[in-house]
Amino acid sequence: MADVTGPTRLLLVNCNTSGTTSERIRSVAAAVAAETTSVDVATPEFGVERVVGFYDSFISAAAGLQMMARWRGQCDGVIMVGFGEHGREGARQLMDVPVVDITEAGMMASCLLGNKVGILATSDLMVGPIRDSIAAMGLASRLLTIHVASGADPSDPSSFMVGAQALLAGGADVILLAGAGMLEIQEHLMRNCGVPVVDGLTTAVKWCESLVQLSLTTSKLQDYRWDPDKAATLV
Amino acid sequence: MADVTGPTRLLLVNCNTSGTTSERIRSVAAAVAAETTSVDVATPEFGVERVVGFYDSFISAAAGLQMMARWRGQCDGVIMVGFGEHGREGARQLMDVPVVDITEAGMMASCLLGNKVGILATSDLMVGPIRDSIAAMGLASRLLTIHVASGADPSDPSSFMVGAQALLAGGADVILLAGAGMLEIQEHLMRNCGVPVVDGLTTAVKWCESLVQLSLTTSKLQDYRWDPDKAATLV
Amino acid sequence: MADVTGPTRLLLVNCNTSGTTSERIRSVAAAVAAETTSVDVATPEFGVERVVGFYDSFISAAAGLQMMARWRGQCDGVIMVGFGEHGREGARQLMDVPVVDITEAGMMASCLLGNKVGILATSDLMVGPIRDSIAAMGLASRLLTIHVASGADPSDPSSFMVGAQALLAGGADVILLAGAGMLEIQEHLMRNCGVPVVDGLTTAVKWCESLVQLSLTTSKLQDYRWDPDKAATLV
Amino acid sequence: MADVTGPTRLLLVNCNTSGTTSERIRSVAAAVAAETTSVDVATPEFGVERVVGFYDSFISAAAGLQMMARWRGQCDGVIMVGFGEHGREGARQLMDVPVVDITEAGMMASCLLGNKVGILATSDLMVGPIRDSIAAMGLASRLLTIHVASGADPSDPSSFMVGAQALLAGGADVILLAGAGMLEIQEHLMRNCGVPVVDGLTTAVKWCESLVQLSLTTSKLQDYRWDPDKAATLV
Amino acid sequence: MADVTGPTRLLLVNCNTSGTTSERIRSVAAAVAAETTSVDVATPEFGVERVVGFYDSFISAAAGLQMMARWRGQCDGVIMVGFGEHGREGARQLMDVPVVDITEAGMMASCLLGNKVGILATSDLMVGPIRDSIAAMGLASRLLTIHVASGADPSDPSSFMVGAQALLAGGADVILLAGAGMLEIQEHLMRNCGVPVVDGLTTAVKWCESLVQLSLTTSKLQDYRWDPDKAATLV
Amino acid sequence: MADVTGPTRLLLVNCNTSGTTSERIRSVAAAVAAETTSVDVATPEFGVERVVGFYDSFISAAAGLQMMARWRGQCDGVIMVGFGEHGREGARQLMDVPVVDITEAGMMASCLLGNKVGILATSDLMVGPIRDSIAAMGLASRLLTIHVASGADPSDPSSFMVGAQALLAGGADVILLAGAGMLEIQEHLMRNCGVPVVDGLTTAVKWCESLVQLSLTTSKLQDYRWDPDKAATLV
Repeated sequence: MADVTGPTRLLLVNCNTSGTTSERIRSVAAAVAAETTSVDVATPEFGVERVVGFYDSFISAAAGLQMMARWRGQCDGVIMVGFGEHGREGARQLMDVPVVDITEAGMMASCLLGNKVGILATSDLMVGPIRDSIAAMGLASRLLTIHVASGADPSDPSSFMVGAQALLAGGADVILLAGAGMLEIQEHLMRNCGVPVVDGLTTAVKWCESLVQLSLTTSKLQDYRWDPDKAATLV
Repeated sequence: MADVTGPTRLLLVNCNTSGTTSERIRSVAAAVAAETTSVDVATPEFGVERVVGFYDSFISAAAGLQMMARWRGQCDGVIMVGFGEHGREGARQLMDVPVVDITEAGMMASCLLGNKVGILATSDLMVGPIRDSIAAMGLASRLLTIHVASGADPSDPSSFMVGAQALLAGGADVILLAGAGMLEIQEHLMRNCGVPVVDGLTTAVKWCESLVQLSLTTSKLQDYRWDPDKAATLV
Repeated sequence: MADVTGPTRLLLVNCNTSGTTSERIRSVAAAVAAETTSVDVATPEFGVERVVGFYDSFISAAAGLQMMARWRGQCDGVIMVGFGEHGREGARQLMDVPVVDITEAGMMASCLLGNKVGILATSDLMVGPIRDSIAAMGLASRLLTIHVASGADPSDPSSFMVGAQALLAGGADVILLAGAGMLEIQEHLMRNCGVPVVDGLTTAVKWCESLVQLSLTTSKLQDYRWDPDKAATLV
Repeated sequence: MADVTGPTRLLLVNCNTSGTTSERIRSVAAAVAAETTSVDVATPEFGVERVVGFYDSFISAAAGLQMMARWRGQCDGVIMVGFGEHGREGARQLMDVPVVDITEAGMMASCLLGNKVGILATSDLMVGPIRDSIAAMGLASRLLTIHVASGADPSDPSSFMVGAQALLAGGADVILLAGAGMLEIQEHLMRNCGVPVVDGLTTAVKWCESLVQLSLTTSKLQDYRWDPDKAATLV
Repeated sequence: MADVTGPTRLLLVNCNTSGTTSERIRSVAAAVAAETTSVDVATPEFGVERVVGFYDSFISAAAGLQMMARWRGQCDGVIMVGFGEHGREGARQLMDVPVVDITEAGMMASCLLGNKVGILATSDLMVGPIRDSIAAMGLASRLLTIHVASGADPSDPSSFMVGAQALLAGGADVILLAGAGMLEIQEHLMRNCGVPVVDGLTTAVKWCESLVQLSLTTSKLQDYRWDPDKAATLV
Repeated sequence: MADVTGPTRLLLVNCNTSGTTSERIRSVAAAVAAETTSVDVATPEFGVERVVGFYDSFISAAAGLQMMARWRGQCDGVIMVGFGEHGREGARQLMDVPVVDITEAGMMASCLLGNKVGILATSDLMVGPIRDSIAAMGLASRLLTIHVASGADPSDPSSFMVGAQALLAGGADVILLAGAGMLEIQEHLMRNCGVPVVDGLTTAVKWCESLVQLSLTTSKLQDYRWDPDKAATLV
């Protein structure tokens, strides 16, 4: 099971069209990946600069799937880099390799560290998609609440303290950041709040690498069966 | 509340790219709509001829939203014509008018007629999306099962009898057809099985008309708040 | 399916013994009904002037069923006009035509307009029956909370504003009024709160008409099978 | 807490109008009651000889509440003797003493004896009301299934063996009889199946006695608050 | 079913190593037990003086099971005296007689008296185990919340009033004490709050006696089947 | 976050007393661990040779916690090697480092690969503990069923084919083995069934290493707060 040879080729699929974001997530992923892992990033060709809310999320899901289709057979694992975004079931049908959504990896890792997970988001429009994403993965009972850090400024980690403290006061055991690779905020909150703070992207990188190493891949039965007739539909 | 004047302009959004389907659903909808209702159909410009399964569904959701965006301000209600397809939350954020997904209308109507609803589908790839759509609307406890009528031929209503009987034997009180406007099959099963058989499209037409008549429209709070900055992102 | 001829005869079953209420709900229903629909109201012969709470609700359920039994074969659809009241499953067993409870219609319509529904009630004794009614229809996950507008005066719509605002502050996307045909309150809140406010009675009228038009009727399998031996038990 | 003096006066409320049933349940209850307990039975003045299904159940609920109202202040505990029947919440609002529904007592006792409870019923019309009653008490996750012993004859205990074995084959750990005081069937199945078989009536008698002895009585807050104005409504 | 002869021998299994606690719970149990019931208490030989939290609870579960193993065949019923503690499923596998956990008995009795149960605990470390214990018995939907009466002093009943009032303000219909035999606190709160206050130990004594009288005992199918090979493993 | 220096010291806690098992799991873990990871195994000093069922599981939980207590401060991560066994919440309270239960890791990995997980167990006594373990982690909705491969012989991988096929026929998308490090069976089933087959132990090793690398550790708030007074209770 463990004699996978050669490097692991991870594909990160950005959910938005921003090249800056793509560069940032590549760098965060590469920093935690194994030496034998290579990291590529696919940036959608249509969609929005910053995905927030249901409408953006559905546009982004299609744009991301379009990118993934071009990587079929050319990567060993896919990481969907959009917290609370749609499309993971489509990706699992499309790809033969393991697909890890950072929302799943972040939530599952959080559940290993504490009972009730508090999510810290930066826009009220993210609440609905995140709530539904977690319900769809079956972990709604572990989600305490999604707190919107209204005034927080991503470039100032300390501005997230008020939101983090609100989550802890409400009973959160762990904080999960609704973003990807917000490492400075993660470190600031861990140091100052004394609780684990989870980032979905770094977790997803390690878990996807693990699945690849263990030769585990997506089920092709039922929901995720790929009908070869669909090949023609790939754009 | 009831002094809406002028005709009700319903927009049906087809989930696939087939003009034949668009014509068929227009005709089914028009046949049950009020005399004062006009029916338009938007056919996606990309996607697939026949949507079956998660991958198709996510592509279709984006394609449908793109069409809807062009109809903002020019219709009184939207009906999403794809059984078990994604995108309704995005449509509700995008549009100011009521949006009815035929999966919702079909399931809710079924719940008014019996306790346990059995869904009759024509492909195993539809099971996952339908199951998740119904869970997301909160009615999973009312869904008995989704039965795949493997060998059934849409042009031969009697070929659906085996599947319908399997649902009844399993305890279904009502049968919901996983399609849109399959009226001949509906009539055949109703006549031969002695149970209500529900079609989501016709139900959605009447319910959408009702919401319009009652001046009820989509909430623009929270999940469905439309951020005007997004206007630029409309394709 | 659509060639129903002649007028649709709707029967409203009042849950209380008040003729004034019966007159008011008839008038509200008639105002939104189609021209070809006739509206009759059955007023129970025993029970209470105003149903509030579990005890009243169970008395009222039996009184309403007694009235309905007299209308078997003489109406095309039944609307149970009591928000949160018991008895709909009994009515569905008794009657051959579609039965719509205004609690169901109001809740389902609300779910088409927003994610979380906040209910505005006028007595704390209504909370239990409404909560249980919504759980029984399977939509508990969509109910945010039931707020009791303690000091509100039905004749002064503005007195409901405090309660409505409490629901919105708590995260409700839609407000559902725990009453029947409170149209002035509905209009006042819609105008002043900027959210959809749903009335169960008007919604139920349109949905029941729709079910009749679409030739859909109550399942007579299992739960709602009518045993002819019961005829003797009808009072 | 334990200095209750004098005998405990239990009131059994039959759900049907049959004096024979009333006599039988009185005798079963008396046989297991403490020596210091007296047992009275109230037989409804309207309703049906044998309650089966939703319609009967709602009529019976009102008839039973009418009887109970006459016993206010004259008994120490009430047992509602109808398996899967409606009305317990109304009874708790009406009465100041503990109210135990045999469906609750039977289900709770079963849950102390095994994980998954299989219910053995004698009519398919009982399935819906029992299922809903158990869901309303919050124990749906402990109910394996409700099996209808179609051909079984209450006067022949061995005729219930087929149904009991079906439940065990399906994974039931405990069998709960959907009836009241079917002691011969209970004994026959226990002896021949090697599993606990629970009767709701005998369990309810002991639990109601216990609540009385421990001075525990129905909460009069919220749902079960009795509004003195209702006194006039008692028939 | 009712001809059990001779006294009922109840075994209380203390969850901690304190002989003082053992003496107190014996006395509380004996005070409510029937005259024909004898009460023994087993005190674990290892573990902690006062069980609070998950770690203690798992140590205590094993210590209690060790004690119970010595009483196999020598008692008629077992009561596990630890509110929210682990081990009941193991006890049911080990013993042939009925096993009642005071958490179950207390929660079930509370559910007979009101809809929403509020639990009053004395340490924040108890919250997790109690929450999980109630979820495992299937009654999570009936639990309003677990309130920690931080400053309360068990020797001063009035110090629990603040916590009790917080539960009532939050919507609790019944208060369940997270302890065993805290009768003075129970009486104080009942007298001063006007709601039922439930103690799990006294309830468990009566319910266990009832199961014994009714010849009901633990299912030995599946989960609780005792494999005779395990005899050697008993310490 | 990524500058952890030195090797990662993983502690595997065997759930049974068998040295042979300890040796086997050490070897399986070492084979998939990173080169910089060291693997130690703690073998309980009391308990049973093979843990099957609730009673064994509770004894084992205490025995495992006793071992872990000796390793406080001397390892970087703990893996609880018992599929479906109790105790993880106690371990999280006791230890300052991440704790991964193989049941959790196996279930979470499975959920990344398919929608419905089928578990393949080797004894009917394991069904209850596994079912409850998965419910407690919040993933019950993703568990299709637990199938007992009655006649299967761990030394003959092909003997598990019948059970695996039963799971697939029932609708499982992924198979999760209810054991630890059953790699030959895993490989045999993957090769012959064409679906992912997950082993909890190897998954847990990789995930625990990941948590350590990412500096994520158990929350010490609330449930898992360690009260220093408990130090005295460590055996």
